[in-house]
Amino acid sequence: MTNATPPHQARPQAAGLRAMLAALTPLDDTARAAAAARDLQLTKPPGALGRLETLAAWLCAVQGRHPPTLERVRVVVFAGWHGVTAQGVSPYPAEVTGQMVANFAQGGAAVNQLASLAGAELRVVPLAPGRATADFSLAPAMSEDDMLDAFATGMAAVEPGLDLLAVGEMGIGNTSAAAAIMALLTGDPGARWAGPGTGLDAPGVRHKAAVIDRACALHAGCTGDPLAILAAVGGREIAAMAGAILAARRQRVPVLLDGFVCGAAAAILHAIEPTALAHCQAAHRSAEPAHRLMLERLELTALLDLGMRLGEASGAALAIPILRAAVACHTGMATFAQAGVSGKA
Amino acid sequence: MTNATPPHQARPQAAGLRAMLAALTPLDDTARAAAAARDLQLTKPPGALGRLETLAAWLCAVQGRHPPTLERVRVVVFAGWHGVTAQGVSPYPAEVTGQMVANFAQGGAAVNQLASLAGAELRVVPLAPGRATADFSLAPAMSEDDMLDAFATGMAAVEPGLDLLAVGEMGIGNTSAAAAIMALLTGDPGARWAGPGTGLDAPGVRHKAAVIDRACALHAGCTGDPLAILAAVGGREIAAMAGAILAARRQRVPVLLDGFVCGAAAAILHAIEPTALAHCQAAHRSAEPAHRLMLERLELTALLDLGMRLGEASGAALAIPILRAAVACHTGMATFAQAGVSGKA
Repeated sequence: MTNATPPHQARPQAAGLRAMLAALTPLDDTARAAAAARDLQLTKPPGALGRLETLAAWLCAVQGRHPPTLERVRVVVFAGWHGVTAQGVSPYPAEVTGQMVANFAQGGAAVNQLASLAGAELRVVPLAPGRATADFSLAPAMSEDDMLDAFATGMAAVEPGLDLLAVGEMGIGNTSAAAAIMALLTGDPGARWAGPGTGLDAPGVRHKAAVIDRACALHAGCTGDPLAILAAVGGREIAAMAGAILAARRQRVPVLLDGFVCGAAAAILHAIEPTALAHCQAAHRSAEPAHRLMLERLELTALLDLGMRLGEASGAALAIPILRAAVACHTGMATFAQAGVSGKA
Repeated sequence: MTNATPPHQARPQAAGLRAMLAALTPLDDTARAAAAARDLQLTKPPGALGRLETLAAWLCAVQGRHPPTLERVRVVVFAGWHGVTAQGVSPYPAEVTGQMVANFAQGGAAVNQLASLAGAELRVVPLAPGRATADFSLAPAMSEDDMLDAFATGMAAVEPGLDLLAVGEMGIGNTSAAAAIMALLTGDPGARWAGPGTGLDAPGVRHKAAVIDRACALHAGCTGDPLAILAAVGGREIAAMAGAILAARRQRVPVLLDGFVCGAAAAILHAIEPTALAHCQAAHRSAEPAHRLMLERLELTALLDLGMRLGEASGAALAIPILRAAVACHTGMATFAQAGVSGKA
């Protein structure tokens, strides 16, 4: 694991981010077609490998080449501290964020095991360690500059030459931030997006929804401006995930999105530019109930549905072997001609 | 890959198999409880790894030890030849079965890539190579002795000390055999269990259902005797899978079931002894439509749902990394005490 202290990044301007999103180019349909053509020659009935086939073609389309490769795979976990924990929205104390960052560094967390198993480098990026955002039920969580700094740090976690990026987060209180983002993006009441997170009971979820409703009233002026919503109720790790996802698209790096909080970061980009997530797969469907709504909104179909709700890129890391399987079958299988196997009668 | 020519196995008697099934002992609840106790100490909210947690505990319960291990993992593919192909129930010619066995030996099939990626040994066991069963729409597919020989060969593919067995098959025509087994086990019409298999169109599926209905009428006398049904309309590879699944249970080896045809083998055991599959997980839900019904009947919830329908243990092999992830998290994660992470407030 590399525990990177990010260098100072040139801070982009909000207008610059919107321009980047407007200027995204389509995926590579030629590479996708080359994958589809090879697929028809492999020793199996057409379509019999189901989504493994479309994943191989999608990797080609994102990477802009055929065959696809998965040599350099990175799992990145952004960590952020949240002032809204003062409202009692999590059953865990706020200091757990820092304790878990130390646990990542020592190799003791779930994502350490899962990244290692998947043959991926794990990078942990704490954002302003120990320094919480403001309590978004009382004030904007971040200034625009703070948000843009975090966004830039996320962008810097991706470089050309990566073959795959799995994106996740750690931050006690951040399912509240994610739910508030979704409530402000959609205009829905907080109750539609608030869930148990790390394990709230039903009264706890109702309280969390009420905190989000107060925040939505306070920040109603952000409506229609996704980056302003991100600053008002998001978190630094959420801004960083949005930055990493955008940078990956610009650098032709396929992305596995983790669960609910990661999805809220993706939803910010999607709200600005509906095609912004063409290079992303939803690694899994979280047990957080509103994740289903979120995936529908983002038009993503999860690869896994195993009742996980840990965050820290655990679901994203668990999906890496599925992509490896797609590439292994696509590149390693014999063709009908090579194997002397008869085709359909 | 080891391409095993099976030695002659002592043929069990049908009564002996029923006695083995009646004598199965429960899984190890002490080992399961030890896993659950450790799980509560790991640095994550309880339940946050979802099914990975219950899978780790289930592995302990099957293996009869804590912690569980996944060192010796085997993928076994049984191949059989089917006389019912004379009825035009598959779009692929019957010779593809032997051609694919050769493809397995040369490393060119999907399961070769998937087993290798999963760190599993691949064993291919052709049953009576090139010698087809009788066309079950006209006569019993196998004599009882032939069925029992195949069952014994399957049992011999498992030995104590294996940590996990992924079970699958190859056999042009065998989704018809599997559907006929399910129709006879349930009394349902063939149309409820017949599907496209390797790629039949709608008229092809209707024809396949009609062939199955003729077979059900011909073999109606088997009703209530699952082993007689297996001989009447099954296939050697299906009998062998049933044997391997039963042997695994007796030797405390957890099993990943592949798709529809493998499920029909499991359904034979389940029909004789409803607890016979406690050591099995359904690796995936096949795109073969009736697989959903089958899994409901067997009370199994698939680990993956990726639209696959290839057979040859491809779905089972793809699920191995999920079990490896469950074990890696269970054994590799730090406890709250070790990591100095605070628990729930």
